[in-house]
Amino acid sequence: MQRYFIKFAYNGTAYHGWQNQPNAVSVQEVLECKMTQLMHTTITVVGAGRTDAGVHAECMYAHFDLNEPIDDCNHIVKRLNAYLPNDIEVFTIYPVDADMHARFSAKSRTYRYQVRTSKDVFDFDYRMKVDHDTDFVLMNEAASHLADYIDFTSFSKLHTDVKTNNCHIMRAEWVMESPTRWSFYIQADRFLRNMVRAIVGTLLEVGAHKLTVEQFCAIIEKKDRCSAGSSAPAKGLFLIDVEY
Amino acid sequence: MQRYFIKFAYNGTAYHGWQNQPNAVSVQEVLECKMTQLMHTTITVVGAGRTDAGVHAECMYAHFDLNEPIDDCNHIVKRLNAYLPNDIEVFTIYPVDADMHARFSAKSRTYRYQVRTSKDVFDFDYRMKVDHDTDFVLMNEAASHLADYIDFTSFSKLHTDVKTNNCHIMRAEWVMESPTRWSFYIQADRFLRNMVRAIVGTLLEVGAHKLTVEQFCAIIEKKDRCSAGSSAPAKGLFLIDVEY
Repeated sequence: MQRYFIKFAYNGTAYHGWQNQPNAVSVQEVLECKMTQLMHTTITVVGAGRTDAGVHAECMYAHFDLNEPIDDCNHIVKRLNAYLPNDIEVFTIYPVDADMHARFSAKSRTYRYQVRTSKDVFDFDYRMKVDHDTDFVLMNEAASHLADYIDFTSFSKLHTDVKTNNCHIMRAEWVMESPTRWSFYIQADRFLRNMVRAIVGTLLEVGAHKLTVEQFCAIIEKKDRCSAGSSAPAKGLFLIDVEY
Repeated sequence: MQRYFIKFAYNGTAYHGWQNQPNAVSVQEVLECKMTQLMHTTITVVGAGRTDAGVHAECMYAHFDLNEPIDDCNHIVKRLNAYLPNDIEVFTIYPVDADMHARFSAKSRTYRYQVRTSKDVFDFDYRMKVDHDTDFVLMNEAASHLADYIDFTSFSKLHTDVKTNNCHIMRAEWVMESPTRWSFYIQADRFLRNMVRAIVGTLLEVGAHKLTVEQFCAIIEKKDRCSAGSSAPAKGLFLIDVEY
């Protein structure tokens, strides 16, 4: 048996997230289906993590196992891209040690959340519109406190089956891309369900001066989802890297 | 009477081009309709030029006349953007001399045509997919000859009502934006209908080694549309500036 990693990107607009589920098309399902067709053997992929419906991935990883090793990975990548729809692109497929695991071997994940402070006729599908006088300096001050905490229950979806809500945040900052476009970058060893969008939604309340930085910190300390702000929409969220 | 210029952008995907026409929604129609609603007086705008169905404008100009001058142009811009759909954005409205004309006073127009040599999951709607081994160096050599000619009958739509097919080309070059993304920039005092897309389509035949640079020049010299290559699709074409 040989294990392989597959590195790929997808536009999440048309999908109900990464993970297979009944009655909805997932990225995993389309990828497995096309790989199975191409390789003439049933392929099951294990992703680095889930993304919710409508969330995008600029760089995502998964692993799969084969009894017969692949002769020419580049050739498979090329043919697979021709099989896959426009909104999924495979970058590379490469052999790894049998103990490498797309999910459990990942040291961290990095997400980007995109907003715009004005109209954007070409990018409105990929950016959340926020108020033109949003205070990004204050949001960055609040964001800088995220790394001081471990338990992010306040930013987790309720009733999930994880054992702990602990995460180690390595980076959390707003970066200006143009005068009307900003992105929030966040890197952590793990993310709880809905966490990035809940953090962005709550930071935006700081940026609108509806919450102070102290109140933002108090929300984290409360460990209560109901005290946090509303979730930012999926379309602005991009998984941009998984670090192994 | 006071004349105004309006500078704006639009995503052409949903429109049958700039110009009003029966049985189809044009950008001009939506702009005039919303301006008329907002200003409580019938507004007719004269655009800097036409764009075909599906063609985009990053920066377009039009003029209109008002009997009563506008008190606060910034305020009108703000309100107009709230009225207009997501895919049209107004940047500025400013008073001009009565003899300034959006179309006739324009010294030149600049277009960009976007292509990609691989999949592009986030940008496939705005870029034409071309072969991965397209020869951009050779296409640039062919493009450099465009400025040697005046009569572009070979790249014009047939049966148009213009008096001459003469254009003065000031810039024509392919620029690499990333290893898999290239754009063709072309600036001229005027453009014939379908001209940019016909030039791009014919250059791509040079890039695919189906035409030599000499044959490309011979096509221009023939002054016959039927000898040129097919038109590149509208979705990759952006009007990026009008110079006054």
